[in-house]
Amino acid sequence: MEQLLEPKTTDKAVFTPAVLLEHWQGQRRLTRKVIETFPEEALLNYSIGGMRPFAEMIAELIGLAHHGITGIATGKWQSLDGSDNHNIPATAMNKKDLLKLWDELTDHINTWWQKISIERFKEVDKAFGMYEGENYSTLFYFVDNEIHHRAQGYVYLRSLGIEPPAFWDTY
Amino acid sequence: MEQLLEPKTTDKAVFTPAVLLEHWQGQRRLTRKVIETFPEEALLNYSIGGMRPFAEMIAELIGLAHHGITGIATGKWQSLDGSDNHNIPATAMNKKDLLKLWDELTDHINTWWQKISIERFKEVDKAFGMYEGENYSTLFYFVDNEIHHRAQGYVYLRSLGIEPPAFWDTY
Repeated sequence: MEQLLEPKTTDKAVFTPAVLLEHWQGQRRLTRKVIETFPEEALLNYSIGGMRPFAEMIAELIGLAHHGITGIATGKWQSLDGSDNHNIPATAMNKKDLLKLWDELTDHINTWWQKISIERFKEVDKAFGMYEGENYSTLFYFVDNEIHHRAQGYVYLRSLGIEPPAFWDTY
Repeated sequence: MEQLLEPKTTDKAVFTPAVLLEHWQGQRRLTRKVIETFPEEALLNYSIGGMRPFAEMIAELIGLAHHGITGIATGKWQSLDGSDNHNIPATAMNKKDLLKLWDELTDHINTWWQKISIERFKEVDKAFGMYEGENYSTLFYFVDNEIHHRAQGYVYLRSLGIEPPAFWDTY
């Protein structure tokens, strides 16, 4: 016990890329359940305080992750197209197609993740030609941004009287 | 380029405890700005869809982190007291005192973080006597849960016509 309380060096690496990938995919499984919980009409149109409907937030998440993971793997970043939907065709803005894009992205992330070298995680890129930082911090941003928007979806659901999935249900 | 696209082993550690600490404290700096942005009355009482006021969410975050970081460092977990406020005295449920507790927690986390051995991050504990998992995943939970509730605060603010801090403003 006494020994545990002594200062330890904290400059060693602890988390493997596999741990971060599993963490992200767990969060993505929960986000998928939140998309499924939305009635289609509310998914596409419901809003509080002038914020975007949840479908548009999901389109942002899909666009960021899809192009972000290849950017991190290859070092080649494309610009986002400037629209709120980040390259998701307007015709895909329905629940079925968003879920399909979500599931395709699951495989896309798993595939490209394996191509990220250990060195690349630590390198500093200008993500999407705009956001400079270590690639691992850009990955943290993708996960955090997903949790952030998903939580806004939780408030939308609650205000509609709909029980959202449990926050810990990432399985 | 060709070389970058070849599969790489992903079982090596990349992220140091220092990286995770800085990430968390950055998120905590943003959460502090969100607390500050709330008018006191709304902080304590405003709600959407039957959810808790933001002050109560903040009390949860403070209680979890305060007792959680010592649990991870020492392996000794105390039970949460079962109240929504997680051991925060009702008299502290105002903006000034919550910010004071928030700032004290910043130092508390920094101090105890240094006492977490590399091995402890990977060990499996039953956090608070209830939630079993590797300690690093419990830490991820603390950060994710904070982002989750903070984002609900963003919706509260937007619905009150108040502009929240920028999501990337973790400095």
